[in-house]
Amino acid sequence: MTDAVNPAIAGLHPYQPGKPIEELARERGITDIVKLASNENPRGPGSLVRQALQAGVVDLSRYPDGNGFRLKAALAEHHDIAAEQITLGNGSNDVLDLAARVAVSPGTSGVVDEHCFVVYPLAIASANGRVVRVPSVDWGHDLDALAAAVDETTRIVYIANPNNPTGTWVDDSAIESFLARVPQDVWVVVDEAYAEYLARYPNAIALVDRHPNLIVTRTFSKIYGLAALRVGYSISSPDFADLMNRVRQPFNANSLGLLAAEAALQDVDYVAESRRLNVDGLDQIERGLHALGLDWIPSLGNFISFDAGRRAGAVYDAMLDDGVIVRPVANYGMPNHLRVTSGLPPENSRFLTALERALERTAR
Amino acid sequence: MTDAVNPAIAGLHPYQPGKPIEELARERGITDIVKLASNENPRGPGSLVRQALQAGVVDLSRYPDGNGFRLKAALAEHHDIAAEQITLGNGSNDVLDLAARVAVSPGTSGVVDEHCFVVYPLAIASANGRVVRVPSVDWGHDLDALAAAVDETTRIVYIANPNNPTGTWVDDSAIESFLARVPQDVWVVVDEAYAEYLARYPNAIALVDRHPNLIVTRTFSKIYGLAALRVGYSISSPDFADLMNRVRQPFNANSLGLLAAEAALQDVDYVAESRRLNVDGLDQIERGLHALGLDWIPSLGNFISFDAGRRAGAVYDAMLDDGVIVRPVANYGMPNHLRVTSGLPPENSRFLTALERALERTAR
Repeated sequence: MTDAVNPAIAGLHPYQPGKPIEELARERGITDIVKLASNENPRGPGSLVRQALQAGVVDLSRYPDGNGFRLKAALAEHHDIAAEQITLGNGSNDVLDLAARVAVSPGTSGVVDEHCFVVYPLAIASANGRVVRVPSVDWGHDLDALAAAVDETTRIVYIANPNNPTGTWVDDSAIESFLARVPQDVWVVVDEAYAEYLARYPNAIALVDRHPNLIVTRTFSKIYGLAALRVGYSISSPDFADLMNRVRQPFNANSLGLLAAEAALQDVDYVAESRRLNVDGLDQIERGLHALGLDWIPSLGNFISFDAGRRAGAVYDAMLDDGVIVRPVANYGMPNHLRVTSGLPPENSRFLTALERALERTAR
Repeated sequence: MTDAVNPAIAGLHPYQPGKPIEELARERGITDIVKLASNENPRGPGSLVRQALQAGVVDLSRYPDGNGFRLKAALAEHHDIAAEQITLGNGSNDVLDLAARVAVSPGTSGVVDEHCFVVYPLAIASANGRVVRVPSVDWGHDLDALAAAVDETTRIVYIANPNNPTGTWVDDSAIESFLARVPQDVWVVVDEAYAEYLARYPNAIALVDRHPNLIVTRTFSKIYGLAALRVGYSISSPDFADLMNRVRQPFNANSLGLLAAEAALQDVDYVAESRRLNVDGLDQIERGLHALGLDWIPSLGNFISFDAGRRAGAVYDAMLDDGVIVRPVANYGMPNHLRVTSGLPPENSRFLTALERALERTAR
C-alpha cells in the first residue's frame, strides 16, 4: 500500500530516545540503573512543583485550558513579553514541529546544521520540505555557511543554542548578525532548551521584537525537571503565534503539566541549585575523561559528548551491562562519540567507572 | 509575510474548545459554574486512577517511556490484539492527526461527513490535502454517499461512531459493508471516542485483522474520565502503526497520563457506573427538552444536540449569565443547535432551568 502513503513520511526514520530505565531492567535483568542518556535533571522535580501537584486542585476529568491562560501569564511576566507571543507545546518538540508545519510546504526547504538535534530535519521532512544540511565547524553551527545556504526555496532555519548533542553555542551578537543576513521571509527558529544552564545565558528572546521572523523555543524538560509532563513553549511575533495556533492540537499541553510548569517557573532556588550542580558535574566528568585520555567537545549544556576513540556502539553496550545508560549519537553523524548527561556526583562516578571498564573490554 | 507561510495552514480556522470554567469566572465574575460543554465525565476520575497517581512512583524529571510499554501491554490484553497494533497519542486528537499526516500528501484528498468532528477536516487540510464533505442524512453519516465520494485522489475517510456533535451512529455491519466498497488503498479511520458509553457498543476493532486499511481510534478522555491527562490511541495493522511512529513525537504521551490510563482501564466498576449515570442523564435531559417543546437528535454519546428553535448563539450567551456552559455548534453547520453533555442529576437540572430562562429571554 505504499501508493497510499505520503512519500515524505515513508522515508523517515523514527526518533531514537534514550533507553528507559525500565526497559534496560526488563531486557537484562539489571537493577540499580543509572540513566545519563536524556539530559534530564537528576534531582527530580523541585519542592514547589511537588506542592502544587499534591494540592490536588486539578479535576482530571476536565480538559486542560487550551489557551493556557495562567502559564502564559506567568511566562509573560517572567520574560517581560506579551502573552500573545507565547505558543505552548507538548514539550518544545511540539512547537518545533508546529513551526515547520506553518513555514514549510511542498517545494520549499529548511536549513539545518550537520550535527543538529534530529527533531529539526524530521519536522521539515514530515512537512513535505527538503532538508538542507550545512557542515559544522569544530562540531558547532557555522552561521556564515547556514546563511549562505539560504536560497529562494528556504522557509525555515533551525539553530540550537547550545546545540544538542554537541553542546556547542554561539553568542547573541552572532545570532543578530545572522538575522541581519537572512531574508525577512525566512523563519529562524532558535532552540534554547538548555539556555538556563548557562550563568550568562544566550537569550534570543530579547531579539524577537526587532525580528518578526524569529521564533525562540524553551522547555520545562531540562533545568526545570519536568520532562515527564511535556511542556515547552515558543516566543514569537503574535502573528506567527496565531499561525501556529491554527495547526496546534487544541489541548496539546496537559493540565498537570501546565500547573507544574507554573510552579517550576517560580522556583528560583531550584533552578540556581540545578545550575551549580551541573557546573560541578561537568567538571567531574571532564576530569574523569581527561584521566582516561579521551577527548570531548566543550559543552554549555548539561551533557558532554566525548570521543570513545573507537566505534562507540560496543562501548555503549558494555556500559549497559554495568547498569549505566548513556546515549549513542551515531545517528547524528558521530559514530565514535557518546553523550553523557551530567548527573548527581555518585552517578557521574558510576559512569566513569563503567566507562573505564567498557573501554578495557572493547577493542579500539 | 504570507509568502512564507504554508497556504494550507494560512486558510485554517483554529478549533474552538468548550469554554473553561475558569475563563467564564474571570469574564463575568460568576461562581458556582456548571460546565456541560466538552463531553467530560462529570464524576471526576475513578478511585484506581487516584490511587495510582497518589502512589507517586513516577519521577517527573524523567522522560516518559516513548514506547508506552506498560499501557500498550494492558491495552493489548484488554482488546485481545497485539501491542504492535497500538499507537499512543496525546489524546485521540493526536492519532487522528497522525493518520492524516501519513495518508495525505499534496494533491490528494480526504472524505468526511458534513457535520463531522471538526478535527478531521483540520487534519486533512493541514496535511496539505483537499477536504471533501458529504451531506448527512438525518444528521448522521450517509455511508453510501461517503463511499461514492471516494475517487482516485482519496487517501483517507473519517467515520465517527457515534458522531460528535450529532450523537448519530452506524452499526458494525454497515462499517463492514462500507469497507467492502472502498478501495483497499484508502485508509478508513473509525473514531470510537464514545464507544464505551453504549451497552452493546460498536467495536470496529474486531474488523482490523481482516481490513489492513482500517484504523480505529479510542480515548481515555471520555468515559474513563481523564481528559486532563491527554491519552488516546489507535488500533491498526502493525504496518500502519509503524508509519505513524515515524511522524509521531517521541514523547507524545506524558508519564502521568500513561500511568493513569493503565489504572483506568482496570476500573471496570467506574466505567459501568459511568455508563449507567449517562443513560439516566440522557433520559433526564430528553424529558426536560420534551417539556420545553424542543426537538433533539437521538444520541448514543454522553451528549445531546438539541434545536433551540432560533439562532442558538443568544441562548448560549444567556445561559452563561446563569453559570451554565453548553456548546455552540454553529461551526458544525448547525446554527440553531446547542450541544449539552449529560452531567450529574443536579447539573442537568441546572441546565434545564437555565435553558428555560434563556429561551424566555431570547427572541425566537
